Amino acid sequence: MNSSHPAVHPVDVPPTDVPVVPRVRMKDWQGMPGTLGGLSLRIGQFCFAVAAFSIMLSIEDFSTVTAFCYLVAATVLQCLWSLSLAVIDGYALLVKRSLRNSLVVSLFVVGDGVTATLTFAAACASAGITVLIGNDLRECAQNHCSKYETATAMAFLSWFMVSPSFFLTFWMLATR
Amino acid sequence: MNSSHPAVHPVDVPPTDVPVVPRVRMKDWQGMPGTLGGLSLRIGQFCFAVAAFSIMLSIEDFSTVTAFCYLVAATVLQCLWSLSLAVIDGYALLVKRSLRNSLVVSLFVVGDGVTATLTFAAACASAGITVLIGNDLRECAQNHCSKYETATAMAFLSWFMVSPSFFLTFWMLATR
Repeated sequence: MNSSHPAVHPVDVPPTDVPVVPRVRMKDWQGMPGTLGGLSLRIGQFCFAVAAFSIMLSIEDFSTVTAFCYLVAATVLQCLWSLSLAVIDGYALLVKRSLRNSLVVSLFVVGDGVTATLTFAAACASAGITVLIGNDLRECAQNHCSKYETATAMAFLSWFMVSPSFFLTFWMLATR
Repeated sequence: MNSSHPAVHPVDVPPTDVPVVPRVRMKDWQGMPGTLGGLSLRIGQFCFAVAAFSIMLSIEDFSTVTAFCYLVAATVLQCLWSLSLAVIDGYALLVKRSLRNSLVVSLFVVGDGVTATLTFAAACASAGITVLIGNDLRECAQNHCSKYETATAMAFLSWFMVSPSFFLTFWMLATR
């Protein structure tokens, strides 16, 4: 047995009843689609957008300023988007379904990106005009400065709640 | 040998001189930090921000409108940031060094996010006021509407070139 010793070693027969270990997968962070945090963010976005829309509509002559009309349009779009996503999140939570389909997540990222950009742009334009009327021209006596400010603040808050949704969904898409 | 047959099989001695296969790593996409595309984006951002800044400064009474002062401040910050990053990208290209350090990439993401948000906000506020003066009040005769429009457009273009930098760096951070 000394002349040649092929590398023969006793090996264990591989057991066949070992459970398959699942691949390590990223945890669902609160705020991602299909989580309770995600649903809360959507409801917050929707409520702030509705508030901005209602306050702006309550001003009689808002339609004389293009930027305020644009704010109304942007908040309507934000309301529709956030409400739809809130319904989807609620459904996913109810039936305990994961929203990790690549196509669905891409759609969420694009939608969030577009609505966030539009809402932020509208809020910034309205803020610029509110500051112009209030600070630069000092014409708050003839205008509803406080209402403009409140509507703008609500639009900013709505955008502020879309941003985490967008970034978490984008992160989900990148690490899926 | 029939009574008990332990599972003994001949196995190959594992070879020791096999080269270590490197882990599959994401390709450097053009536009990411440390690439020629990234450097081009930085130069573009810088040029458009300088253009917006110069045009706005060439208007005598721009400082009477808060939003225009804010545009000047935002474009200065954008210039400084884009120039710094262009220098870093140029250096990384010259010495063929990869900019994949986690801390550095996080810093780039935060900086790009902040400057992009500020530039976009300033551009939107200026656009809102430009539309107010030009379309709603029709007072272009007393104002430099075309200069306001050009400065605003340049700021939007600068933001438009920061966005890919931001998203590609964010993607790099998420998939590092």
